[in-house]
Amino acid sequence: MLKNRVWLLQKQIMDKICDVRIVDCLESSYIKPYRMEYKQNGRQRVWDLCKVHDSVACIVYNSTRDRLLFVTQFRPGVYMNRCSSVNGVVDTDRYPGSLGLTLELCAGITDKDKTVEQTMQEELEEEIGYHVPLDRIQKVTAYRSGVGTQGSKQTLFYAVVRDEDRTSSGGGNDSEGEMIQVIEMSPSEAQSVLMDESIMRPPSLLFAVQWWLANHASKFAAKEAADK
Amino acid sequence: MLKNRVWLLQKQIMDKICDVRIVDCLESSYIKPYRMEYKQNGRQRVWDLCKVHDSVACIVYNSTRDRLLFVTQFRPGVYMNRCSSVNGVVDTDRYPGSLGLTLELCAGITDKDKTVEQTMQEELEEEIGYHVPLDRIQKVTAYRSGVGTQGSKQTLFYAVVRDEDRTSSGGGNDSEGEMIQVIEMSPSEAQSVLMDESIMRPPSLLFAVQWWLANHASKFAAKEAADK
Repeated sequence: MLKNRVWLLQKQIMDKICDVRIVDCLESSYIKPYRMEYKQNGRQRVWDLCKVHDSVACIVYNSTRDRLLFVTQFRPGVYMNRCSSVNGVVDTDRYPGSLGLTLELCAGITDKDKTVEQTMQEELEEEIGYHVPLDRIQKVTAYRSGVGTQGSKQTLFYAVVRDEDRTSSGGGNDSEGEMIQVIEMSPSEAQSVLMDESIMRPPSLLFAVQWWLANHASKFAAKEAADK
Repeated sequence: MLKNRVWLLQKQIMDKICDVRIVDCLESSYIKPYRMEYKQNGRQRVWDLCKVHDSVACIVYNSTRDRLLFVTQFRPGVYMNRCSSVNGVVDTDRYPGSLGLTLELCAGITDKDKTVEQTMQEELEEEIGYHVPLDRIQKVTAYRSGVGTQGSKQTLFYAVVRDEDRTSSGGGNDSEGEMIQVIEMSPSEAQSVLMDESIMRPPSLLFAVQWWLANHASKFAAKEAADK
């Protein structure tokens, strides 16, 4: 399972990273540091925080092919956590872009005047190339990411899709500079990802896969057996 | 299950929040914004990031009392995500401190010259008051938090404890200003937390609980049945 890592080998383009420089971030539309001063039970306290956007994510199951659908992309934060810079310059021969490739749920930030369901629908179409009617985008739960420093909310959805829902090969919004690839996995491959820390993946994906295995995998396995 | 929310009602002290002010964060030991400039497949890109510490977390099962152990604390980031400020001032009558109370795994940042296991051991003793020998702190996996903006690594552990391991009531490191309370839940109570988004909890807790239910709950249930 995943031994060939075909899904990583495919990504020779998106991990072709060079000319990496680390510079100051003086102002940003995405990262807003701030400090909260407060009294807790009469005691003065200070906490440093970073405001980021809320987001949506979806675990997607293609029932035509019995595959869970994920995305992979190059994530600068993960990359920088795994390498060092000298005077702001990163040696990309020593630290190849593949260090920053992640496996993630189809997801996106909620920065537009849309409902979370509409945002999720848009991301499903943009990132993985499936048009999913709103009534098939089922809410699972919502949780809080980065409770120590951010506390932003991510709403998790579940969608069952079929091949006929596919409208494109996905890949993200090119005008926004997104470079994303769809990754399909059998349920057992996805299960093996849970304990494989050599694959960079967020805890939201681990929960979503584990939740799907506990609540939905057997249903489809039973159906498949009955169809035979 | 959890209907009385006893564990929330107990926390009248830690959510007694007042005099909340939002100010600029010009320099911080915890939050370091930076910008990465790079070329991806020849195309110039920019990504804004925030460096935070790596961390450890542990799902703890007390086999003496058949309870999973968590912590609750006031989290400024979660609180601020749920309220508004006017000229930097938050109206705490309108937005009570209870909005920022979270349910979390026993966890901590790795900012000292110690192994992740040693850091976890220290946090278990400080936060929940159990001394757990290193050989009983079992690694589950590691994952990447905040892949969009941070990419930091959290290593997840599992520990089975018994009442006789308890050395204190926990509560965190008072000199570091921590105010933490231990929360005990039956496995079925913990399961009900998975889908209850009115409880502020991170995806790491959701994964850890779901993982424990899938891999360990039946073992203890079987033992309990055999003991009767």
